[in-house]
This record gives sequence, C-alpha cells and structure tokens, in this order.
Amino acid sequence: LVESWSFLDTVESNFRPLVVIELAKGTKEETIEWFTKRIVDKKANGGAQLLVKPLVTENEVENIYLVGASHLRLLLGAESVGLVKECNDNSMRAFTYSSRKTFKDFADDNHNFLTMAECQYIIKHELENLRAKNEKMIPGYPQAKLYPGKSIVRRLLTSGILVQIFPLHDREELKKLRHSWYGRVKVGYQPLDDIRCYFGETIALYFGFLEYFTFALIPMAVIGIPYYVFAWEDYDKYVMFATFNLLWSTVILEVWKRICAILTYRWGTLLMKRQFEEPRPGFHGVLGINPVTGREEPVYSSIKRQLRIYLVSLPFVCLCLYFSLYVMMIYFDLEQWALDYHKENESNFSSLMLYVPSIIYAVVIEIMNRIYRYAAEFLTSWENHRLESSYQNHLILKVLVFNFLNCFASLFYIAFVLFDMKLLRQSLATLLITSQILNQFAESLLPYWLQKRYNRRMKKRMCSQKTDTDLSLADQVNMEKEMGTYLGTFDDYLELFLQFGYVSLFSCVYPLAAVFAVLNNITEIYSDALKMCRVYKRPFAEPTANIGVWQLAFETMSVISVVTNCILIGMSPQVDALFPDSKMDLVLTVALVEHLILAIKFIMAFVIPDKPRDIQMKLARLEFESLEALKQQVRAFQMQLHFLLIQH
Amino acid sequence: LVESWSFLDTVESNFRPLVVIELAKGTKEETIEWFTKRIVDKKANGGAQLLVKPLVTENEVENIYLVGASHLRLLLGAESVGLVKECNDNSMRAFTYSSRKTFKDFADDNHNFLTMAECQYIIKHELENLRAKNEKMIPGYPQAKLYPGKSIVRRLLTSGILVQIFPLHDREELKKLRHSWYGRVKVGYQPLDDIRCYFGETIALYFGFLEYFTFALIPMAVIGIPYYVFAWEDYDKYVMFATFNLLWSTVILEVWKRICAILTYRWGTLLMKRQFEEPRPGFHGVLGINPVTGREEPVYSSIKRQLRIYLVSLPFVCLCLYFSLYVMMIYFDLEQWALDYHKENESNFSSLMLYVPSIIYAVVIEIMNRIYRYAAEFLTSWENHRLESSYQNHLILKVLVFNFLNCFASLFYIAFVLFDMKLLRQSLATLLITSQILNQFAESLLPYWLQKRYNRRMKKRMCSQKTDTDLSLADQVNMEKEMGTYLGTFDDYLELFLQFGYVSLFSCVYPLAAVFAVLNNITEIYSDALKMCRVYKRPFAEPTANIGVWQLAFETMSVISVVTNCILIGMSPQVDALFPDSKMDLVLTVALVEHLILAIKFIMAFVIPDKPRDIQMKLARLEFESLEALKQQVRAFQMQLHFLLIQH
Repeated sequence: LVESWSFLDTVESNFRPLVVIELAKGTKEETIEWFTKRIVDKKANGGAQLLVKPLVTENEVENIYLVGASHLRLLLGAESVGLVKECNDNSMRAFTYSSRKTFKDFADDNHNFLTMAECQYIIKHELENLRAKNEKMIPGYPQAKLYPGKSIVRRLLTSGILVQIFPLHDREELKKLRHSWYGRVKVGYQPLDDIRCYFGETIALYFGFLEYFTFALIPMAVIGIPYYVFAWEDYDKYVMFATFNLLWSTVILEVWKRICAILTYRWGTLLMKRQFEEPRPGFHGVLGINPVTGREEPVYSSIKRQLRIYLVSLPFVCLCLYFSLYVMMIYFDLEQWALDYHKENESNFSSLMLYVPSIIYAVVIEIMNRIYRYAAEFLTSWENHRLESSYQNHLILKVLVFNFLNCFASLFYIAFVLFDMKLLRQSLATLLITSQILNQFAESLLPYWLQKRYNRRMKKRMCSQKTDTDLSLADQVNMEKEMGTYLGTFDDYLELFLQFGYVSLFSCVYPLAAVFAVLNNITEIYSDALKMCRVYKRPFAEPTANIGVWQLAFETMSVISVVTNCILIGMSPQVDALFPDSKMDLVLTVALVEHLILAIKFIMAFVIPDKPRDIQMKLARLEFESLEALKQQVRAFQMQLHFLLIQH
Repeated sequence: LVESWSFLDTVESNFRPLVVIELAKGTKEETIEWFTKRIVDKKANGGAQLLVKPLVTENEVENIYLVGASHLRLLLGAESVGLVKECNDNSMRAFTYSSRKTFKDFADDNHNFLTMAECQYIIKHELENLRAKNEKMIPGYPQAKLYPGKSIVRRLLTSGILVQIFPLHDREELKKLRHSWYGRVKVGYQPLDDIRCYFGETIALYFGFLEYFTFALIPMAVIGIPYYVFAWEDYDKYVMFATFNLLWSTVILEVWKRICAILTYRWGTLLMKRQFEEPRPGFHGVLGINPVTGREEPVYSSIKRQLRIYLVSLPFVCLCLYFSLYVMMIYFDLEQWALDYHKENESNFSSLMLYVPSIIYAVVIEIMNRIYRYAAEFLTSWENHRLESSYQNHLILKVLVFNFLNCFASLFYIAFVLFDMKLLRQSLATLLITSQILNQFAESLLPYWLQKRYNRRMKKRMCSQKTDTDLSLADQVNMEKEMGTYLGTFDDYLELFLQFGYVSLFSCVYPLAAVFAVLNNITEIYSDALKMCRVYKRPFAEPTANIGVWQLAFETMSVISVVTNCILIGMSPQVDALFPDSKMDLVLTVALVEHLILAIKFIMAFVIPDKPRDIQMKLARLEFESLEALKQQVRAFQMQLHFLLIQH
C-alpha cells in the first residue's frame, strides 16, 4: 500500500504534515486505496490534489494518514476559499493567484505567506469539498451510500470509517504563543493577532470579547467597591449606580461592534464572502431534487420538521422549564428549613448552614444546565435541520431560554414575590461565586489535570522505549489524537452571558457582582488559554466576522435588566419614602423612568455607528473599486471580442 | 445649428422622443453646440451616444430638445444600469446584451421589450453620467466650473443653464392606464403592474402600500363600527378592541414586508444592485481628493457639517417644537373660552362654536407643518450633505419629529394632563377629519383645478391657430413643460404616517378613526391617481426595493401606541372599578400588560420572516448560480490562458 504513493517519497523533503486523518481500525484496504487516491488525484479528475502520507509507527494496526499540500496548491486553495490578505498598499483584498505579487510579504519562496492555521483551513475545505462522482457507495461499504455531489469526507465520518480529522500543533509556535499569552505574569493585552494566527478568528474573537468585556466591567467594579467598603445602604447612591450600569451596558455592547469591526477588518474576515452553505453532516432524508441547486440530494419535508419542533421539542422544553421551577420551590423549602434551624439553635455552624441551600442549589443548577444541554443537542439534531446555521440557532435558543430561567428564576422569585432584598443579595452572591468556581474547575482545571496525568504516562512509556527525549512526529500525532476535542465557543459565551445576567439584572442590590465578574474573567482568560494550548486538540481555524447571535443575546439581557433594576429601585424603602402621600406617583415615576431609559438605549444603539468611520471608508473604497473593475472587465471583454473578430 | 446634426434626419423615422431637455432662454450657441455634441458623441469619446433633436415650434426663442436613443443603445444602457428582467424560465436575472436571447419576450425587432419608463430611466442615467473630461468650465459660462469626472448635467442644472429634464408622457398608454386605474367605478385592486410600467417602482410601491394599508385597516374599521352604533361605553370591549389593534398593527407591518418582497421580486428591483452613490447636485466644497474614489472632487469637512447640525439645526428644531407647544397652549385657552361661552348662552350656535377652536387649530397645524417643511428643507440643504441618502435621512428625521409633536401634542396633553376623555375624542375626530379634508384639497383637487383651467386656456389658444384637434408633439411638449413637478412620495407617506398615528395612538377612545381612515384612503387612491396622471409632469421612474425609512417610522409609531393605549385603558373608570382596593395593583397590572404586549410584538416581528419562503428559495438559487458561474469563469479564464500560451 505504502509503495503505491512512492512518487510522494521524492518530494518527501517538501512534505510538511498539516492535517491528520485517523481511519477506523480494520478499515478495508480497497476503501483506503480509493480514498487516498481521491485525495491525491488531479482536480480535473475530481480529486483534491493534496499530498498524503501514512504515518509509520512501530505498531502497524493504526490507520493514520498525514495530509499536506504543495505551496502552489495552497495558494490556489487560498483563492478558492476566498481568503483576504493585506496588500502592499495596506488595503485588504481577496487573494487571487494572478495578483499574488501585490500582496504584502508575498514571495514565491516565502512559505510563511499563509499561516499554518490558514493552510490547515484550506486543506479542511478541500477535503470537505471532495465530492462523489458516479460512485453509488463507498467501496467496501455498501451500506454507506453516495450520490453525485455528496461530500465524501462527511459520508465517511457519518458511517464511522473516518474517526477524526484534526490539524497538527506546531510545537515551536505553540511554545512562543504560550509564552506571550500566559507564560509570564504581566499586565497587558492578550496577543490577539498571534492567537488568531494560531487558532483562527472565531477563537481569537472570543478571547477578544472576553478581554474587552473584562475591561468594560472595570468601571462598574470600581464604582461598586465603595458601596461595599462603606456599607452604603443609601438608595440614592444605588439609583445612581444602577442608572450608570444600565446606560453603560448599552455603550459597551455598541462599542464592541466597532472594536469587532476593527479586529475582523485587520484579519480580513469582515470582507470575506459567505460561502454557499452545504447540508450539515447529520442531515438525512430521501433522495430528491434540491430546489435551490437543482442537484440530487437528500430532502426532508419542512412540515415534518415543524411538527417535530412544535409537537415534541416545544413541549419538552416547557416540561424542563416546569421541572426547573419545581426544583426552585424545593430550594426555597430548604432555605426556610435552614432559617428555622438557625433560629432554633444559633451557633457558628447554623449560620454557616444558612449558605448551604444556596450552594446546593447552585450545584444542582449547574448539573441541570449540563444535562439539559445534552437533551437540547439530541432534540435539535433529531429535528433534522438542513443547515448548520439553522441547527445552531435552534440549539442556542433552546439552551438560552432554559439556562436563563434555571439560573435567574429563583432570584426573580425572591425579588418580586418574596420582596426579600437581603436574601436576594445573599442568593445572588452564592449563585455567582459557586457557579464561577464550578465552571473554572469543570472546564479547565479538571481536563488539564487529566491531560497532564495522561501525558506523563505516555511520555514514560515512550521514554522507556527510546532514549531520545525530543518527541518524534509519530509520538506527537499519537499524543494529540488522544486529546479532547474543543467543541467550539458556545459554552464559553454562555458562561459570559449568564455572568452578564448576574451582574446587570440585579446590579442595584449587589454592586459587588461586577468585582467578582472581573476577578473571575481575569482567571478565566488564563484558564481558557491553558485549555486551548494544553488540554485540547488544535481546532481548525474558522473565519468569522462577528460574535453572531450572542450580540443579540447580550442586548436582550441588557433590555431586561432595565426593567428589573427599575422595579428594584422602585421597591426600595428609601425611594418609597420620597413619595409619602401616594404610591401611585411612585409607580408612575418608576414606569416613566424605565421608558425613558429604554428610549435612550434604543436611540443610543441607533446613533452609535456599528463600524468606525475609517473602516466604513475602507469598505466604501473596496466597493467602489470592485464596481470600477467590473466596468473595465466588461470593456476589456468587448475589446477582446472585437480583436478576435478582426483576426478571423 | 439644426443642420449640424443633419445625419440624424436620415434616422428620423426611427427617432422616438423620450426625454425633453429645456435650456434657459438665451443660452449661448457655443454652449448648446458643445452640450448636444457631447450627448450624441460616441462612448469612446466620452459621449452618451444618444440621439438629440431640437423641437421645431412656431416661436423660435425656446431652446427645447428631444432626446431619444437607438434600440441597441437602450439595450446596452439597460445592462449598464443593471436592469433585472424576467427570463424564459420565469426566473429574474440582470439583463446583459450577450444573454439577451434568454429573456422573455426578447426579439431583435421587438421594441417593446423595454418599457418606455425603463427607456427614459436609462436615458436619464446616461445623461447624468455624462462627465467632464478636460473642460475647466462650461463653454460660454466661465463661472460654471468643471473638473474631470464632474457630471455635466448636474452642473448645467445648478448654474441655471438647464431649466429641466423630464420624460414625455405616452398619451396612448396614459389613456389606457387612466381607464383601468380610476376611469370606471369598480371594486378591485389597482393595476399595480401597469402603474409600475408607466411610473416606475417607487410610485407603484407607494400605491401598493396605500392599497394594502387601506385593506389592513378594514378589520379595525369593521370592529370599530358597532362601538359607535351601539354607543358602547363599556371599557371591557374597548380593551379588547385596543389589544386587537396593537397586535394587528405589528402583523400588518410585518406582512407588508413580505408583500413588498413579492412585488419587488416580480419587478426585478429586489435583485437590482445598488449603484455607487454620486454626490448630490447641491453639494459644494473646495476641490480635494475623495478618499474613497481617489478622484478630485469637492470635499467638505465632516466636522463643519456636524457643527452646523448641532449648533444651528438642532436648536432651530427645538425652537420650532417650543413654538408648536406654545400654539397648543393658545388653542387650549380658546377651547376654554368656547366652553365658557357655551355655558353662558346655550344655543345651537354656541354648541357649534365648541368645534371652532379645534378646526382652527387643525388648520394652523397644517399651515405650520407646511412652513416648517420649507425651513427643514432649507436647513438640511445648508448642512451640505454629500449624499442624497444622507440628506433624505436628515430631512425625514427633522420633519417627522416636528410633525409628530405638532399633530399629537395636544392629544397627549388632553389625555395625560387634563384626563378629559370626552374632549380627547372630540379633538381627535376634529383633527383627523379636518386634516384629511385639507390634505385632499391642497394636494390634489386644487392643483387639478388649476391645471384644468390652464389646459383649457392653452387649448383655446392652440385651436385658434390650428384646425387640427389632435395635439402635435410640439404642443404636447409645450403643455407638459408647464405642468407642476412631482416632488416624490415624501408628502404622501407622511400623510399616511400621521393618519396611522391618529388611528393607533388613541384607538381605544375613538374606534371610529379607522373608519374615517379607510374612507379617506379610498378617495386618496383616486385623487392621488388623478394627481399623477393629470396634474403633474411624468416623473422619472426610480427603482426601489422597499419603502425604506418609512417602515421604521411606522414600526416606531406602533410601539408608541402600545404605551399610550395601555395608559388610556388603565385610566378608564371601568378598569379602575376592577381594582377598588388598591390603585397600586391597577398600575402594576397595566405596566405588566404593556410589557407583555411589547414583548409579543418584538417576538412576532422576529418570528415572521421578512420574505416569503418561495422568494427566499429563488434568491438562494440565484446566489448559488452566481457562485457557480464565478467558479466556471475562473476555470474558463485559466483554460483561455492555457490556450494562448500554447498558440505562442
């Protein structure tokens, strides 16, 4: 088998392994031969024209292949994925091979023009676009059906022949990145451009948002500290604090859009054209004609999907919400019991016991959130959405609604049914701090510890066989393939979203929340960085121009927080005292203020431009140039026709 | 002069006059010669390659020219303006000359493939894109400066040499359109497609919206009638009516977006690419480099403009708002006086007198709105916006804020300060009906009457000279050039917007408003149609894909109306009676209901897709095809290169 690609051995010196393909143990020879042939085959024959090499290890049973590509192939691939790079005149343009000389740092022998993450993204894209021609099935696996145009890799993945595809780490670069990111204790910004070069735009944008959000919370935290230090129970001051918070949250969300535009313009993704979306891997249906592409592919009735959504998913979500509320009522029973216990036998132990129900409830909330997450994923996948984006939207909606209720229902109940501000403050603090500790532990420290133990064992085993301490390629691949897979930024954003809820929804009763959020986020940056660099496999870079639906989620939260804060302030005895004669006036004033703040928020969101002026100008310039180019192209085409007519 | 284009006489039989250019009396010969030469000159020499012919009349002092174009020229022009037409396979595609055979109804000898309005739009576009080359000024007028790339027609207009450009009416077509539109009394839809063919998309979309809006108001009107007939003073029923209204207004605005998408897809404008925006005619500044295009053109500092906006326009608008409130207070004094008078000497005359202040106030409001409109236009033009769109946005914002306050301030005052529901109902009715009568009169009937008188005079004069009763071309041009110019749909939409305010803001106290609105809109359709066909010059067709900023304005109004209606219902004695113990509970319930309705509105706006599913599919199909075409183009280009290399 290895000999059949012997021609590759001649270019061995140029072969740089970029992506690892792991096939299932015992995959049939003919399948492997067919698949690898398709990968190396010429584009004209429907291949991907990449390079592929089996990984030679001492233990021969494993089917691991390394994929690379020639420099020229990668440049052509960069053009076909629509990569945007910086030109010599500092403008950003879509890379084309014919205009390659105009790009900054381009030289025919400069193999660093494309970053390794970009090369890996290109290879992933080319592999996923490897499509069946006339094959009716995957050779050797009659049950794995194919039809013309079906992505081969997706079918291999869904039928279990392909275990995984992942990009290799670059140990040198990773070391450098680790050092500049979290290697030394320093005050300063994260190396976002380096993170983007190594992990791609989606992850860099998450870290950018995390950092920005932390900085944006600092004013809230700073203003909140004196309230704690001087134990200000003065609601005049709380009102000021809350008003500041409410307007501030709009400002930070609007300014983030601008910062996001600056970052993604620099990274080129703001200009990247959206690729035509393929059906997601898990999508299934009977073979039919896609009305958009006119190609034969599985189709699934939209009515069936709607029925599944409204008759199964929706009732299930409602049931879960009910269950969550039921658990909340149990928590209040426990709380009451603890209070009674404390009253009966007052001691240090009993006052400590006061916090126990909240802590238990916080742990239960986390567990319920995680279980629900699996159920939501299962249900959304069962709804059989055709596009990944539609799947993601339905999943995010399900998860957000449940998490919101699960985390905040008890606080709403305490605030607006029990009217117990002291209990609200105590619950808020316990929930916030417990969930932060649990998250940090479950997300980063635990996997890190497990990974470290595993690595030590692996190293020990390898060292016992070899004397060379430097890891060989084979060892590196074997080690990385066992690492966990990073499942995207969803959980990280969700955590920030809930934190934003704790900070903003009841900010006027617990100004210290922002302080805890800032402290948590600083450690979060480090633990997330650790997680990305040490715990997980390298993820494929994913170009993105913004944080997508999360922007909307954060904005919705900031609108809800206006309502809650206005009610809380209106309920405070100090504000009450300002209207001794009439409760009506109080309520009307509160309602008026609420509407005013909401109106100001909407006007601010409308007035602050989403993109800074210079980015707007650059985009307008590009649009103008492309229109001009189109005009000239038409003119040139007409000239050419004219020229041809004269010749003949 | 006429002889210099003698070559045109040979094609006279083909010459179809489309657009009329009127130059100022006494324009210098050299200017006329230069301008007409530029119009007929070849594209390669920087001309527009159109046909031009002087209008021969008995009175030789007038400089009127007729512009036309060959069929081929118009087809090439259709490609350059990006016209979208229907193909043989019923899909909509951008017209290109090379693919002309694939379009429905295309034949080389079918001169009706492009409608007359489209031909006129193309000629307007070509004339406006006639640009200065090396001329430093308009020949014969040293003060009318030119610079390379400056639109010649715009400079001629601003320097007063060019009086007007307008498209000619097609008397045959207009007769047919008039007949099917308002010629016979019938129940049915307007001939929107014919209107679009004759007047273009912007005007057809206005009439489409007017019709849709009228139909959408019918349910409100039908539900409103029994309240009047049975004199239901029962607030339970009013609450139902208001709730229906509030949700209904969201539904109609969302459904309109879908209908608008269906219409504009059929008309091709949904797919039309936005053209690169030129500076508006009135824009002036010192010559500099435009950072976007890199061309030399007037530039004007953005800071200066901001200063003008915030230091002059904003204070002026505030002053006007203050003045409007001042007038309102005078109205209330008058109202009080009339009431006192009625109490002292009760008679038929005195009870009639009760309505006089409202009527006077309604007239004053209309007058103030119109005066303010001129001031706003002057100020916005003085702010010197570079782009027409930015000018329009600033103008619309200024006018909307003032009109809103001017029309509704007194109603808000009566409702929420005086708490006088009876007076509110009476004022609302008077304002609504008076403003409708005034508008119908001032906008359509008065101009129609003036125009008719003028036409009679003209015809009499002509008939005295000729025996032929059929109008010659010269007579037609002379008659049309004296007609008023239609200034766009702004005033028409504004009228509908204010009407929507009267209907929705206080709908729960005066359910009959919707009935009056429906009645008004039915006559409005006829009077506006009359205005378009008989009173004004034919306007140039203007492609558009939606009603633009008005959608936002209507949606904002529907949000404000939720707030006002909830408060009104909360204030009613019947609802009051439901909460005998605590005013608090009442206010809290009202606030809760208000927030719920607002939340439902936002969710509804989010859930209802803006485009119907089949339009979405068609758009996706087009996007897919253009991506496929791009891929094939790249492939074809590479093949061609390959071929050339082999040849040499």
